Amino acid sequence: MALDFLKFTDENSVRVPAPDLHRQVVAILRGVGTPEEHAEVTAKILTKASLMAVDSHGVGNAVRYSRSIESGEYTVPQTVETISESDTTALISCGNGLGFVAAHQAMETSIAKAKKHGTGMVTVRDGHHIGMVGYYPFMAIEEDMLGMAITSASPAMRPALGAAPRLGTNPIAFGAPAGEEKPFLLDMATTTVASGKLGLAKRLGVPIPEGWAVTAEGQPLVHPPDARGDHWSQNPLGNTREQGAHKGYGLAVMVDILAGVLSGGGFGSQLSGGENMTWTMAIDISKFRPLEDFKSMMDDMIRTLHNTPAEPGEDRVLVAGDPEWEAEAERLDKGIPMHPTQYDEMRSRAQELGVELFI
Amino acid sequence: MALDFLKFTDENSVRVPAPDLHRQVVAILRGVGTPEEHAEVTAKILTKASLMAVDSHGVGNAVRYSRSIESGEYTVPQTVETISESDTTALISCGNGLGFVAAHQAMETSIAKAKKHGTGMVTVRDGHHIGMVGYYPFMAIEEDMLGMAITSASPAMRPALGAAPRLGTNPIAFGAPAGEEKPFLLDMATTTVASGKLGLAKRLGVPIPEGWAVTAEGQPLVHPPDARGDHWSQNPLGNTREQGAHKGYGLAVMVDILAGVLSGGGFGSQLSGGENMTWTMAIDISKFRPLEDFKSMMDDMIRTLHNTPAEPGEDRVLVAGDPEWEAEAERLDKGIPMHPTQYDEMRSRAQELGVELFI
Repeated sequence: MALDFLKFTDENSVRVPAPDLHRQVVAILRGVGTPEEHAEVTAKILTKASLMAVDSHGVGNAVRYSRSIESGEYTVPQTVETISESDTTALISCGNGLGFVAAHQAMETSIAKAKKHGTGMVTVRDGHHIGMVGYYPFMAIEEDMLGMAITSASPAMRPALGAAPRLGTNPIAFGAPAGEEKPFLLDMATTTVASGKLGLAKRLGVPIPEGWAVTAEGQPLVHPPDARGDHWSQNPLGNTREQGAHKGYGLAVMVDILAGVLSGGGFGSQLSGGENMTWTMAIDISKFRPLEDFKSMMDDMIRTLHNTPAEPGEDRVLVAGDPEWEAEAERLDKGIPMHPTQYDEMRSRAQELGVELFI
Repeated sequence: MALDFLKFTDENSVRVPAPDLHRQVVAILRGVGTPEEHAEVTAKILTKASLMAVDSHGVGNAVRYSRSIESGEYTVPQTVETISESDTTALISCGNGLGFVAAHQAMETSIAKAKKHGTGMVTVRDGHHIGMVGYYPFMAIEEDMLGMAITSASPAMRPALGAAPRLGTNPIAFGAPAGEEKPFLLDMATTTVASGKLGLAKRLGVPIPEGWAVTAEGQPLVHPPDARGDHWSQNPLGNTREQGAHKGYGLAVMVDILAGVLSGGGFGSQLSGGENMTWTMAIDISKFRPLEDFKSMMDDMIRTLHNTPAEPGEDRVLVAGDPEWEAEAERLDKGIPMHPTQYDEMRSRAQELGVELFI
C-alpha cells in the first residue's frame, strides 16, 4: 500500500490495552472539570478511533482537549441547547464545549427522529473537534440505519484554481449495515488527504508526496510548515482542474453549507482554528424496504467489489471500512499502538493533573 | 481553462433557440408514443441542461431515448408506482420508462414531504437515464430548499486498486439557494470526469489526458474504445491510492447504496447498460433557521470564495454553478450551440418519425 510509510510499526510504538486508554482519557478530562457523562462519551469515540487505526483522531488528542478546556477555549461544563426543532430536524448549539458531546447527541437525535418519521437530521453550531467523523454513521449502523455525518473547520484547503486556503478539510462520512459482511463505512476528508496525515508525516520525519499541499505560488510542498496561513494550502481531492479539483472543492463547500451555513455557525473562512460545525443524518432503511433484503444485497455488493481483479502490484480490492475493521480486530487482541512521545505525553499530562494513571 | 478543447466554438456548431429545441424534443418523444406530460417534463430537463452547457446531457439525447422507446428497451407509456411510503420517505418504481419522469416526481415528492416534515427523501428503482443530475436539486432551490440527487449506472469505473469496472460514474448533485448571488449547484461524476466527456473528446477527435481512463493492465488510455468492457475503466476521482482514489470510489459506492441497494433496483454490477437508479432529497431550510439569514450567509460565503486569489495562470476562482449560470445567460440570448452532426441527427429523426420540424 502506498501509504505504508505513515503506519505505526512495532519498532516505533508501544501497545496499550483499549480499556486502559479509555480510562486514562476519562481521567484526564475529568481532571479539568469535564462532567462524567461528557468525558465518557468523548473517551468512547476517541478509543474507537484508536482501535480502528484512525490514529490522527485517537486517544492521544485527549491531552490537547484538556489544555483547551483549561485555557477556557472550550467551555466546560457545556450546555447543549436546542435552538430549533421539527419532526425530522433540529439545530443545536454545542455551547462551545467538547464537540463530541453535541455531535453524539446530534446523531442520537437523528436516529430517534428517523425511527419515528423515516429520516432525521441535526446541524450543530458553536462546536469544536468531533474526532473521527465515521464514528457517527457507525452509531446509525448499530441501529440498522444508514448514517451520514460531516464536519467543517477553519481554512486549510484552497478552492480549485485558488492560491490560498478558504475551506477546512471538511470530511464526509457515510455508513450502511450489511448482513454477513462488515458494514460499509466511508470516512474521507475532501482534501487529497486528511490534515492529520501531514502531521503524522512530520512526526515520522518523512516527506509528503506531490499533490497533497502547495505554496501560494502553486509549487508542491514536501515539508509543510507547522502553522496554517495564506502562504500554503492543502489541495482539494482531484488536485488539478483537469483531474477534478473542482469536485473535492465543491464537496467541501457542500459540507460548509450543511454544517456551517444551515446551522448559522459560519462557513470556513469565518471559523477560527479549533472551531468545527457538524451535520448528522440517519435514514431508517425499513421504511423503504425489508431490512433483511437490503442487507443481503449489501453482502452481494461487497463480495462483488472484493472479487474485482486487483491492479498490477496490488493483492486485493478493499471496501470502505475494511482496513478499520481489520485494525480493530487486531488491536482489540494486541492493544493499541502508540508513538512513545504520545504515550509519554498522556502519562505526564495525567500526572500534571494529579489524576490516576491507567497506562 | 484546461478543458477548453472540449468546448463548442462558433466554428464547430450551429445556434438554435432553446424554445425550438424544447418543441423538437417533445415532438420526437411524442412521435414514439410518449404521453404529452412525460414528453414535456423530459424536454424541460434536457433543454435546461443544454442551456447550462451540460451538452453531454442535453437535447441531442432525445434521439437515443426515442430509439430506446421504439426498441422496447424503455416501457412507454410508463406507470410510475409507489412501492412504499412514510412521512418523509418513498420508494417508487420508474416502470422501466423514461428516467426523467420518475426522477422529477421523486424530487417533487421530496419537496412536498420536506415542506410538511422538514426533510423528504425518495429512492427510485426500475429506471433509466435522468439526464443532468443537477436539475433535481435545482427544483429544490426554486422552492428555497436544499436539494440533493444522485444516480447510479452500470459499470464504467474501477474500484480503487481494481483492474476492471464495477461501478457507474455515479454522479452526485447538491444545490443551495443564495440571496443576491447565484445559487450553489454542484453536479459531479465520482469518476475524474463524466463519461460524456470521453464521448465528446471522441466526437471532436482529441486525445484524453492521462488519469481519466486506464487499461486492465493499468496503462493510461489516450483514445478510449467505443464499447465498455472489462478491458478498460474510467478512474475514480483521485486516480491513485496516494491521491485519494478510494474517496471517489467510496462516494460511488455510497451512490449505489442510496440509489440501488436502498431501492432494491440493484447495485452497479447488477445493472445493464442504460439502467439507472436514483435518489433525491429535499431539506426545508426554514425549519432550521430564518431563510433570509441563511441566504445572506450564503452570499457572504460565495463572495469570499470568489475573492480568493487565483493560482498562477488563472483569472479567477469559481463557485459550483458559475459556469452553468453564465452559459445559460449567454445561450438564452444567442441560442444553444449544437454540433452539426447532432443537429442533423435530430432533424432526420424527426423526419423519420414524420413529426413537425421546429429546428
